[in-house]
Amino acid sequence: MNPLETKFTQLGTDNAPGQEGRQKTADLTNVLRGEPLAGQPVDFSHGDVDAFTPTPGAFDAFTVGVQAGGQQAYTEYRGKKSLREMLAARLAAFTGAGVSAQQGLILTPGSQGALFLAMAACAGAGDMVAIVQPDYFANRKLVQFLDAQVVPVRLNYLGNDAHAGLDLSQLEDAFKGGARLFVFSNPNNPTGAVYSSTEIATIARLAREYGATVIVDQLYSRLLYAGQTYTHLRADLNAPDNLVTVMGPSKTESLSGYRLGVAFGTAALIDRMEKLQAIVSLRAPGYCQAVLQTWFAEPAGWLQERIEAHQRIRDALLAELRAVAGVQVRTPQAGSYLFVQLPEMAVAPQTFVALLRHQAAVTVTPGAEFGPHTCDSFRLNFSQDHDAAVHAVQRVCALIERYCV
Amino acid sequence: MNPLETKFTQLGTDNAPGQEGRQKTADLTNVLRGEPLAGQPVDFSHGDVDAFTPTPGAFDAFTVGVQAGGQQAYTEYRGKKSLREMLAARLAAFTGAGVSAQQGLILTPGSQGALFLAMAACAGAGDMVAIVQPDYFANRKLVQFLDAQVVPVRLNYLGNDAHAGLDLSQLEDAFKGGARLFVFSNPNNPTGAVYSSTEIATIARLAREYGATVIVDQLYSRLLYAGQTYTHLRADLNAPDNLVTVMGPSKTESLSGYRLGVAFGTAALIDRMEKLQAIVSLRAPGYCQAVLQTWFAEPAGWLQERIEAHQRIRDALLAELRAVAGVQVRTPQAGSYLFVQLPEMAVAPQTFVALLRHQAAVTVTPGAEFGPHTCDSFRLNFSQDHDAAVHAVQRVCALIERYCV
Repeated sequence: MNPLETKFTQLGTDNAPGQEGRQKTADLTNVLRGEPLAGQPVDFSHGDVDAFTPTPGAFDAFTVGVQAGGQQAYTEYRGKKSLREMLAARLAAFTGAGVSAQQGLILTPGSQGALFLAMAACAGAGDMVAIVQPDYFANRKLVQFLDAQVVPVRLNYLGNDAHAGLDLSQLEDAFKGGARLFVFSNPNNPTGAVYSSTEIATIARLAREYGATVIVDQLYSRLLYAGQTYTHLRADLNAPDNLVTVMGPSKTESLSGYRLGVAFGTAALIDRMEKLQAIVSLRAPGYCQAVLQTWFAEPAGWLQERIEAHQRIRDALLAELRAVAGVQVRTPQAGSYLFVQLPEMAVAPQTFVALLRHQAAVTVTPGAEFGPHTCDSFRLNFSQDHDAAVHAVQRVCALIERYCV
Repeated sequence: MNPLETKFTQLGTDNAPGQEGRQKTADLTNVLRGEPLAGQPVDFSHGDVDAFTPTPGAFDAFTVGVQAGGQQAYTEYRGKKSLREMLAARLAAFTGAGVSAQQGLILTPGSQGALFLAMAACAGAGDMVAIVQPDYFANRKLVQFLDAQVVPVRLNYLGNDAHAGLDLSQLEDAFKGGARLFVFSNPNNPTGAVYSSTEIATIARLAREYGATVIVDQLYSRLLYAGQTYTHLRADLNAPDNLVTVMGPSKTESLSGYRLGVAFGTAALIDRMEKLQAIVSLRAPGYCQAVLQTWFAEPAGWLQERIEAHQRIRDALLAELRAVAGVQVRTPQAGSYLFVQLPEMAVAPQTFVALLRHQAAVTVTPGAEFGPHTCDSFRLNFSQDHDAAVHAVQRVCALIERYCV
């Protein structure tokens, strides 16, 4: 295999969320136990934007964008100036630290676009990049695409609620060993763990001490459950000089169909990101950019209501899952992911995921996507119809009991 | 400078089309001649979608997409299956060779997204990539981003109408020298030259002989002027085994605000492109994908009318420009670009471009963006209001005469 073939072999997407339709049907005949469980199919690989619909006013804002014509279709690569000005103020208020509309903010095709641009702006061939395990699957794959080198840092997210559980000594070792970029999601995807103020302060201190750049993916930071505290790294007095924060309205706000994300932070890095965007996608879709006018400007009470509805689903699903012997799952402090660790099973975890689809019409994302230590887990995005989600998880629980050792 | 700094320094976008608003105003005091020329500002750096409006029905198709909800927001990474099936048939009919909806077609964020994914799927660090000079500015920059190596192939587009003017012996030398990827736009951007059937047949034969992969950007191939013939490389009997064709509805169809592109061809390459899309932008914007239903299905006569309107503008501008001593410009056979070679000037070409904005309210793209041999040229996208374009080019001509030696 030549290096390019090797690289793309590593970039497998067969098990990535949403790609299940392209999988060849595994032959499960020899492992099948019992009959299928009837119920409404639920695809937990992503949120259901029919159950939690896009922000009120989003489509109207898009329509106004189309009517505005060329000035909205062709924006600067980093996004329309007036929108950047509007968003810079809102993002500064949300995160507790200033955002420069002109120099420090870029609109991107989805928050994933932002993450790609940020990582490509900060890491090249051979560079060591510290990433968390488990964390968002693209982090690892982007490091590989850039011919850079993964330096893993463990997140011990189970058995502790006071902290996300980052192994801070491993992070320091990564920096000591030469990593000059650290990428992490907060809240953590897939576990929903939120980094404590102590953890954030330590990350800031270590990054500064070792002159490291930090990219923090805060995609789910608005969907914060009752009683939880969220600490924005960028507002830390010690925040690293080179810091990019990634967000977007695809999750909490259900605007994924418009493909919008933002990155904000260090001007020199945002500059690089724009240069790269100019040759990989030009800009966030012009008309879609107009939808960002609704972001952080939702109707009063809308966000609170959305959080409460998610919290009710979260709690209902946790109650079902925790009733199954051997299942371990952390209570997510933010976001809409549950990361479920299976008890010892009679089938491989990957096979169990296939069985869930085959026998229970339930789609989940295998834990192996998020890191090498979580192959015995799977992720659920519980931003779904409440009753359908509960019933689907009841079927999941029944199958865990059916296939466990 | 570390390698990453060097790379991003090379990826300058200050003179890229649409970025003029971010340029620092050059001090032109010492070179100014005469008074400003009054007239409606015209931005020739891209098409004016207010003058040539989006395809009829585009917005309606988008609206239906939004109403379809989750199934349209979350598609496979390579795009919604039913749309791929519809498009595969239309693209096969247009290009004269079969397209596999399931294995050989991907929807992307703009045709630029398609170009990036295709090039990244075919070239890695150190690989030699043959690209045309002049050609679309992103080609060169993408090679640089991928740490690959540019092998230039000249296009002698002036002084000959029978062929685009590709130096075929240089292309063969590039393959002999080790290049295994050739990337070109047809019609050529920025000149509007269309490759002759002989040239296409030779490209096919050489690529096959040397086992090279070809990426052909056919973005403007629908806007073909009266009496011209267009040869699709993929329909050649000798077409290379590894071939990706890039198109999109951003230009002729004025749908740039929706950020849509497609790539179609060799299944193994489309697979790689999907794997990469899964970590750089996920998918073409879900709701926007629905707009592709209108593509190649426009109302009867719509395309013909659009072509004729562009041809009238083309001919009017050519008449103005050719009346100026020393100006050289090829008659574009397709697309809406004019690439104008200046006579000897008293100011640097880059300064003249700045003067056009300053004294004539006319924005053009400097020739240096397209290759090192065309610094004395500039590109006009004449998809503009007819009268405004003619008047703007009259001002351009007046300034050429004012500043020429």
